[in-house]
Amino acid sequence: MAKLEMFDTTLRDGAQTEGISFSVSDKLAIVRALDEIGVRYIEAGNPGSNPKDMEFFRSAGGMQLKNAELVAFGSTRRKGIAVEDDPNVISLLEAGTKAVAIFGKSWDLHATEILGATLEENLACVHDTVRFFKEKGKEVIFDAEHFFDGYLNNPDYALSVLEAAVRGGADVLVLCDTNGGTLPMGIYDVVRTVFGRFPGMRIGIHCHNDSGCAVANSMMAVEGGACHVQGTFMGIGERCGNADLSIIIPNLQIKGGHTCIAGDLESLRDTVHKIAEIANMTVPNNMPYSGESAFAHKGGMHIDGVTKLSRSFEHIDPALVGNTRRFLLSEVSGKKAILLKIQDYAPHLTKDSPETAAILERLKELEHEGYQFEAADASFELMVKKVIGSFKPHFTLDMYKASSESPPPDGVHNSSAMIKIQVDGRSETTASLGNGPVNALDSALRRALCVFYPILSEVHLIDYKVRVLETSQATGSYVRVLIESTDGHNKWTTVGVSSDIIEASFHALVDSLEYKLFLEEK
Amino acid sequence: MAKLEMFDTTLRDGAQTEGISFSVSDKLAIVRALDEIGVRYIEAGNPGSNPKDMEFFRSAGGMQLKNAELVAFGSTRRKGIAVEDDPNVISLLEAGTKAVAIFGKSWDLHATEILGATLEENLACVHDTVRFFKEKGKEVIFDAEHFFDGYLNNPDYALSVLEAAVRGGADVLVLCDTNGGTLPMGIYDVVRTVFGRFPGMRIGIHCHNDSGCAVANSMMAVEGGACHVQGTFMGIGERCGNADLSIIIPNLQIKGGHTCIAGDLESLRDTVHKIAEIANMTVPNNMPYSGESAFAHKGGMHIDGVTKLSRSFEHIDPALVGNTRRFLLSEVSGKKAILLKIQDYAPHLTKDSPETAAILERLKELEHEGYQFEAADASFELMVKKVIGSFKPHFTLDMYKASSESPPPDGVHNSSAMIKIQVDGRSETTASLGNGPVNALDSALRRALCVFYPILSEVHLIDYKVRVLETSQATGSYVRVLIESTDGHNKWTTVGVSSDIIEASFHALVDSLEYKLFLEEK
Repeated sequence: MAKLEMFDTTLRDGAQTEGISFSVSDKLAIVRALDEIGVRYIEAGNPGSNPKDMEFFRSAGGMQLKNAELVAFGSTRRKGIAVEDDPNVISLLEAGTKAVAIFGKSWDLHATEILGATLEENLACVHDTVRFFKEKGKEVIFDAEHFFDGYLNNPDYALSVLEAAVRGGADVLVLCDTNGGTLPMGIYDVVRTVFGRFPGMRIGIHCHNDSGCAVANSMMAVEGGACHVQGTFMGIGERCGNADLSIIIPNLQIKGGHTCIAGDLESLRDTVHKIAEIANMTVPNNMPYSGESAFAHKGGMHIDGVTKLSRSFEHIDPALVGNTRRFLLSEVSGKKAILLKIQDYAPHLTKDSPETAAILERLKELEHEGYQFEAADASFELMVKKVIGSFKPHFTLDMYKASSESPPPDGVHNSSAMIKIQVDGRSETTASLGNGPVNALDSALRRALCVFYPILSEVHLIDYKVRVLETSQATGSYVRVLIESTDGHNKWTTVGVSSDIIEASFHALVDSLEYKLFLEEK
Repeated sequence: MAKLEMFDTTLRDGAQTEGISFSVSDKLAIVRALDEIGVRYIEAGNPGSNPKDMEFFRSAGGMQLKNAELVAFGSTRRKGIAVEDDPNVISLLEAGTKAVAIFGKSWDLHATEILGATLEENLACVHDTVRFFKEKGKEVIFDAEHFFDGYLNNPDYALSVLEAAVRGGADVLVLCDTNGGTLPMGIYDVVRTVFGRFPGMRIGIHCHNDSGCAVANSMMAVEGGACHVQGTFMGIGERCGNADLSIIIPNLQIKGGHTCIAGDLESLRDTVHKIAEIANMTVPNNMPYSGESAFAHKGGMHIDGVTKLSRSFEHIDPALVGNTRRFLLSEVSGKKAILLKIQDYAPHLTKDSPETAAILERLKELEHEGYQFEAADASFELMVKKVIGSFKPHFTLDMYKASSESPPPDGVHNSSAMIKIQVDGRSETTASLGNGPVNALDSALRRALCVFYPILSEVHLIDYKVRVLETSQATGSYVRVLIESTDGHNKWTTVGVSSDIIEASFHALVDSLEYKLFLEEK
């Protein structure tokens, strides 16, 4: 099958995402990750519209990339001026990249209503700008904005815009579904037509996800003849996002037999998580290929099936993209799954070991109290160690007291906590204020423990979830707290249950810190 | 265009999602929401595999549904026994639904390797089970598990499984991409073949999202002749989830011209958010159609374009699905919906009344703090009354203090609260113990108020939900508490927000009791 070009625009179109803002050093780090996995192009900014982007291209000038080409993005010249007098065009040139992406209007309505240009003027803008950059020796990727809406409204005009780009010398014609409204069959038909119309040209696709079809639309474009696919990692982008390259790449490479990247597909999951970390985003658990749950099995029947024959409930071998299979513990998962999970932590146990029976018994008690270990691997591991006797606690609690008051006693903090703990016969008593009682207790517990275990200062919490159980008892209900922690390298989740949310949180906090100390000893 | 059947399996396949566990009352509430928007079928559980699901079907028996049919799900009979002796089949029958969904193996490999049956035995299992339920007068929806993998491996056998279901009398043949690995063109080709092979049969599609194509694959199946589409709201489901009906419905209805639901498409966004709230999930901002960012514009050029001509950067009018356009530079919220709601409580107000502007201003402040009134009408009504000056509080708080201690100071209760309030210049100070600080404070507040308003002894809380906001701040995050109360005749819901869960709960409790007193005066 064909070699395809992956064009990543995480740093340009992805930066339009609500809540995302990349610093120059974030961008440099993401460029390195993308180059490592080996996409062909990295579109990294719009130097004409954004001074931070120009700064980035200056900093990136000296980077040695193994696989990728940096691309700067900009618009066709404005109407009514010469191309060399347009300051945006000049900024784009000054970015100093070998390749540029130039977008122009291909929907007649946009040319007239938004630009206020005649249809002819718009064709001249496209042609002149492409030719200008070709004369400067650049590779020119022409993005035909709103191509699918434009083709629907006025196919002849939309095609004449592509012709203007071809006459200017464009290297690639990218058809953009800018509003994300086109459905898969529509994409396929139009790409095929364009592919037939411009023999020998490289045809590209740029999809948005407003109809939830961006990945599929990109695949359909490849079916229709496209060899150049634009998208972002994790599908970030304005509104509903762009086509997700981290899904398109394995789809095309594993299932379509195409070659998409110069690096290892096995590093896909890590690349996704690295980019998410830099962008300060969470990888959704259900993200295809790279999510934590992408190969997680919950139903007993599925767990049974997958252990008999892996492809029975997995569309690919998770190792191909660097991910791993997981079995979730739940009311529907059955004993076999639990045993497999126990063996992760205590490989010597079999289904007939007395320890296994003791663990299952303890699990039943805890689940009856409202515990759920499905999302709390660290607490599950500690529970297994406790039952089989290989866990030694690093501290004991003498007492704590956490309070919330209104009005706030110091005028600022409405909450306070004090705690007394013991480690090897030495005790530590301390207190902390907070903006809530759990926050105050969390902070007091850490302060006390850090006296003995300074390494715990590395740990911080990244997620805190509360679920009220048996809600018919209202405020007397049980509460389950899930805490996700990190030390910068590892991530783990712990759980606590109580009728008292403070106590439930305390249990989960203790497990989190004990788990870190246990990791250190491993 | 055709009328299509939407088959929702949020409560069955969706319940396989990591971290999701629906209570019986959650399920009943979701059934009501799905019935309201008017999907054709609601698959609500697997009574044979899960006793909680059987309990649900017992509770749901008396529900009056306007639009939807409840469906129970189960497997074909086990090999080697008569269908009427299979306890799972009997449980499925006992669920008492008019329609049943029965899944059977259509991948030869699964029949032999997973079931350990011969190919012929598996055909008999399919045929007998379908016929059994037809003889009992049920509508039978046959789910051909792994149909696409099966068809690829052994097309004749996969088709013979469908034939066995047809001979048994099946009403619908649903082709399942159980592993989610099939790409759009593959789905289209196979569905077309099956559609041609079984003229007059209703063909259905059931897609998973492991290749990021579940929505598109469902659309392609409809192109190929399917009239029955299975999926879940928000695409929840095992691994990477199921096809998202909340995207498929507007795609098919707005763009395909099909009729998919009996209710209003304008209620789509609210339905999605309501289901998310019940499931204790967050609607991703970038979710097509219903996400907060689905029609949010960030780039200056896009904002400029969309104000000149709305469809220039929006694939549909957001009002069609009950969503609103947002500009990220200058936040504007959906005024029209809010105005209608304000007029429920203050019918004399118009969009130009100064009070309306003041309410909108206050609402914006509260939403910024993390309030959400979608599910808290009583708090919204009180807020409107407060702003227009028609609310007079029934008490004032002097102070409260709520604590949680370990070990429990009285040996039993780990929590205590004291409170001092004033009513018309008379004060009351009291205290209470509890099994959690919120419970103790709730009980102290009621005791103090009942001295002045004995009628409050009628009120009790029936639901209490906690939602952690801005989770990146972990235990310092904001918390939103929703409380549902009743006096035996009325039910109402109130909301409170704070970084302190006790304070957030206190706000919601105060609103609940004030609302009861306000009801009494009406």
